Amino acid sequence: MVFYFHDIIYNGHNAKNATSAIVGSPQWGNKTILTGQNHFGDLVVFDDPITLDNNLHSKPVGRAQGFYIYDKKDIFTAWLGFSFVFNSTQHKGSINFAGADPLMNKTRDISVIGGTGDFSMARGVATLMTDAFEGEVYFRLRTDINLYEC
Amino acid sequence: MVFYFHDIIYNGHNAKNATSAIVGSPQWGNKTILTGQNHFGDLVVFDDPITLDNNLHSKPVGRAQGFYIYDKKDIFTAWLGFSFVFNSTQHKGSINFAGADPLMNKTRDISVIGGTGDFSMARGVATLMTDAFEGEVYFRLRTDINLYEC
Amino acid sequence: MVFYFHDIIYNGHNAKNATSAIVGSPQWGNKTILTGQNHFGDLVVFDDPITLDNNLHSKPVGRAQGFYIYDKKDIFTAWLGFSFVFNSTQHKGSINFAGADPLMNKTRDISVIGGTGDFSMARGVATLMTDAFEGEVYFRLRTDINLYEC
Repeated sequence: MVFYFHDIIYNGHNAKNATSAIVGSPQWGNKTILTGQNHFGDLVVFDDPITLDNNLHSKPVGRAQGFYIYDKKDIFTAWLGFSFVFNSTQHKGSINFAGADPLMNKTRDISVIGGTGDFSMARGVATLMTDAFEGEVYFRLRTDINLYEC
Repeated sequence: MVFYFHDIIYNGHNAKNATSAIVGSPQWGNKTILTGQNHFGDLVVFDDPITLDNNLHSKPVGRAQGFYIYDKKDIFTAWLGFSFVFNSTQHKGSINFAGADPLMNKTRDISVIGGTGDFSMARGVATLMTDAFEGEVYFRLRTDINLYEC
Repeated sequence: MVFYFHDIIYNGHNAKNATSAIVGSPQWGNKTILTGQNHFGDLVVFDDPITLDNNLHSKPVGRAQGFYIYDKKDIFTAWLGFSFVFNSTQHKGSINFAGADPLMNKTRDISVIGGTGDFSMARGVATLMTDAFEGEVYFRLRTDINLYEC
């Protein structure tokens, strides 16, 4: 299963379009600009549209909801906890993910830690790939999900 | 297994009784009032009593500990990461949960992502139901836990 | 498998050596001093070196990356979400953890909720032990990891 999700971070001027916002930051940071030192310490909450192709304006098939935290001072790296939430004729239920995302690597693996509905008891690995990155406001992740039977 | 847990959020005036507190918020938010836009971006840490019935004053059988983040602008939805921690004659150990909680739905499923002690290696699904909701200070969740052998 | 990881929290004066920082705090807290009431509500992001022995200056074999939240007012207790990230000749991949850490107990168990690479599909339990605690700036955790085949 391949999906794309699209993250537009709030920067003080894009309240209408933003799908995520900084809600925690270190002492030297703030809530509208990702901090220096590779954003170390910024905590972002998101509710991003999931699409089947790489077009932000395609009809969403679900929402990617959760948080990421930039957690390294000397390179871009994040820790993710989030869900894919589906409520369509094709999929009903959620897939839950957690893990480290060393986002300068071309591909990164995180864990499928569970699921509900159609994905009840899901386990597996999801491979993330940064499909686009525009300034510090928009990124798009390609997600290849491999689920295993227990 | 059916449990109830009780969350009383700190609002600046209830330090004695509060079991949770806002510790992250978006630029437009603060730490004593849940923000507008369906609380999008508020991060709450909690240590809530678990009871066997729906009475806040019943003897707790454990504590629900972790966090929730409101993560959607246009409806109440949260992402949860928490544990049920038991230390009684009946249960010793913890059950760990994660997942999306679209809390306007009557019932919502999240994942049991692991356990320790009596619940070592637990997996399964927990169904949440909002059993009471009083203003923006108190809520009570009914939790039906279904564990599976791997 | 036994590992140690080392956490040096940012206190306003140790930017060079700090491996973690407070990024969320309750209304009464701040970002450079852990709050009273057993640090209730402080959210800390970390990128800590992992070593094979208890020496902070030993060559790291990986990084422990993620967050912890102090979540109880009347005793030190935290909730952890993090990964061990390895990229050495010995281990490539990550192990993902989550769970409650009642850190005044001599040993505490948390869940292995997944893994990637060499640890693909890992499940199990990790036992944490506080191996050193110096003021409120440095601590070292011993981690015994027991993985199970599914």
